[in-house]
Amino acid sequence: MNLDLSAGAARLTAELVDIESVSGGEGTLADAIEQALAAFGHLSVTRNGHAIVARTGLGRPERVVLAGHIDTVPVAGNLPSKPDGDLLYGCGTSDMKSGVAVQLSLAARVSEPVRDVTYVFYDCEEVESDRNGLLRLARTMPDLLTGDFAVLLEPTGGVVEGGCQGTLRADVRAAGERAHSARAWMGRNAIHEAAGILDVLRGYSARRPEVDGLTFREGLNAVGIRGGVAGNVIPDECVVTVNYRFAPDRSAEQAAEHVREVFDGWAVTIVDVAGGARPGLRHPAAASFIAAMGGVPRAKLGWTDVARFDALGIPAVNYGPGEPLLAHTKGEHVSLAAIASCESRMLSWLGG
Amino acid sequence: MNLDLSAGAARLTAELVDIESVSGGEGTLADAIEQALAAFGHLSVTRNGHAIVARTGLGRPERVVLAGHIDTVPVAGNLPSKPDGDLLYGCGTSDMKSGVAVQLSLAARVSEPVRDVTYVFYDCEEVESDRNGLLRLARTMPDLLTGDFAVLLEPTGGVVEGGCQGTLRADVRAAGERAHSARAWMGRNAIHEAAGILDVLRGYSARRPEVDGLTFREGLNAVGIRGGVAGNVIPDECVVTVNYRFAPDRSAEQAAEHVREVFDGWAVTIVDVAGGARPGLRHPAAASFIAAMGGVPRAKLGWTDVARFDALGIPAVNYGPGEPLLAHTKGEHVSLAAIASCESRMLSWLGG
Repeated sequence: MNLDLSAGAARLTAELVDIESVSGGEGTLADAIEQALAAFGHLSVTRNGHAIVARTGLGRPERVVLAGHIDTVPVAGNLPSKPDGDLLYGCGTSDMKSGVAVQLSLAARVSEPVRDVTYVFYDCEEVESDRNGLLRLARTMPDLLTGDFAVLLEPTGGVVEGGCQGTLRADVRAAGERAHSARAWMGRNAIHEAAGILDVLRGYSARRPEVDGLTFREGLNAVGIRGGVAGNVIPDECVVTVNYRFAPDRSAEQAAEHVREVFDGWAVTIVDVAGGARPGLRHPAAASFIAAMGGVPRAKLGWTDVARFDALGIPAVNYGPGEPLLAHTKGEHVSLAAIASCESRMLSWLGG
Repeated sequence: MNLDLSAGAARLTAELVDIESVSGGEGTLADAIEQALAAFGHLSVTRNGHAIVARTGLGRPERVVLAGHIDTVPVAGNLPSKPDGDLLYGCGTSDMKSGVAVQLSLAARVSEPVRDVTYVFYDCEEVESDRNGLLRLARTMPDLLTGDFAVLLEPTGGVVEGGCQGTLRADVRAAGERAHSARAWMGRNAIHEAAGILDVLRGYSARRPEVDGLTFREGLNAVGIRGGVAGNVIPDECVVTVNYRFAPDRSAEQAAEHVREVFDGWAVTIVDVAGGARPGLRHPAAASFIAAMGGVPRAKLGWTDVARFDALGIPAVNYGPGEPLLAHTKGEHVSLAAIASCESRMLSWLGG
């Protein structure tokens, strides 16, 4: 399977989409990418599982990282790709083979970038975190990922989205005492008690802090509730699972502390937490990137893999041609003009 | 397996307990009961599945029904029975082979009762309602169950418990709108909305109506709650399952109407409902029964099979030697003196 990296990112997107690569099954696409990149003498290429890292080595004072995942969610009858005027339909068009196509096209075309570039193509972003290819690279070969600034080419509709919010899940427990429901006053109903937890959630005022010039918007919400023993029993436990989305001016530890404070008096168990990422837009490489892409950057509210760069001390933003609201939908598509625009702006930023 | 019905109910209880009869496996015990009763010329005996009905036919102006189930919950390492002074330990001692022993002993000893008597022994009371042997008899041979007054020899600790409360379960639904939990304000959180349902429950004032001279005590309680789509999704539905225990001055229809009124504005689905039973203590046969048993009768708050007699137009009470709080426990036991006292009072009531 030969990829034609010279045709431009818009045409290359269709080629990438037509090589099915549902998470765990990225082998064929990874082989094609590795083979295509190996043809270019200005790149040194490293393969790790189904991930590929290609680097220029020009000794420039700055190094930037362009990263994207090559896997997709399961196909929903939407392969092979179908063009319709300016639009290209198919699984992975927006999330995020159009971004990967931009990476590949730049890697092929810009042999002498003004900044050294590390192109990262990785596997298993759409599944559980411990299979994530970028996490694996960060753990096993962190030197390959070093840089001054990183761009994750996830779908953002062509707007720079800086950093990302962290996410924490916690179980908040209301306790009671069992009794037969015909003699309810012999016990204490934990589900009724849990109304107090919901009252806290309803009364919660979420912060909207400014971090590195971007306004984030936090949220604290129930995402699950469960309680009940049997149809004739007053239940002795009710558990509310809450999700706290926190701005990157708070660490994971501070977020956990905050949730414990908010639910003071209830039993709180932190289920999982992933810290966010500061936008880092004040870094010179970031500032030049913002200027080259145009538009007004906004804060990224969802958690993304930019947090993995933040954990390595590398400021990172999200920027890609795909449309975030189309990700994971059967009717997923992308605008060919948006791909070309993204490619041309990044080309000029790299001095190609 | 020969049962000795002449030894008195206390000794007979141990014999019955030692014939294992977990719901669905009552065959051996039913055979033994049928065979033992067939020896008495003053009884006409009918077998239906694992249920047995034995009737006197003396043409008395009144007929009373004495009923009990012969099945038990699963054995918990507590067979065979073990005597310890006045106590007999074992599966089914309290619930309710001691009551069944009283029935059998009376059936054998009282050949010319002052009231005609129908003795009912039935299967599958401890399992789902549609397998219940009394319900099967009521549907297929209702003539066998006719009478002016019924006593169910369920464990009541030797106190007459009149009638029973009805029970209704309903699902009350809060609706919302899904959104990504990083952008919660794009949706509406159904779990947060459900706090309103819990507020109704917490503020509910339960009735304590007097019915036929007994004070009942109603209750409306959550017995289950569920909601949640995924850890990163604002949920669009939360369902609270409520259990309404209602006094027998309300019909099943009135109970359902009441629950709909209480949760006006929410979507309410009635899951199941079983009407209660009026105590019927003003009936002459009931009044003489109360006088003969002594003590102050109280209202039965839980639902029992007396409601099946109520549905046939027969007033019914619960009265038996077992201890209700011991039912279904590994350490289940019964007092032999309590069995003898129950037997002797009922013997005198029947004029034996």
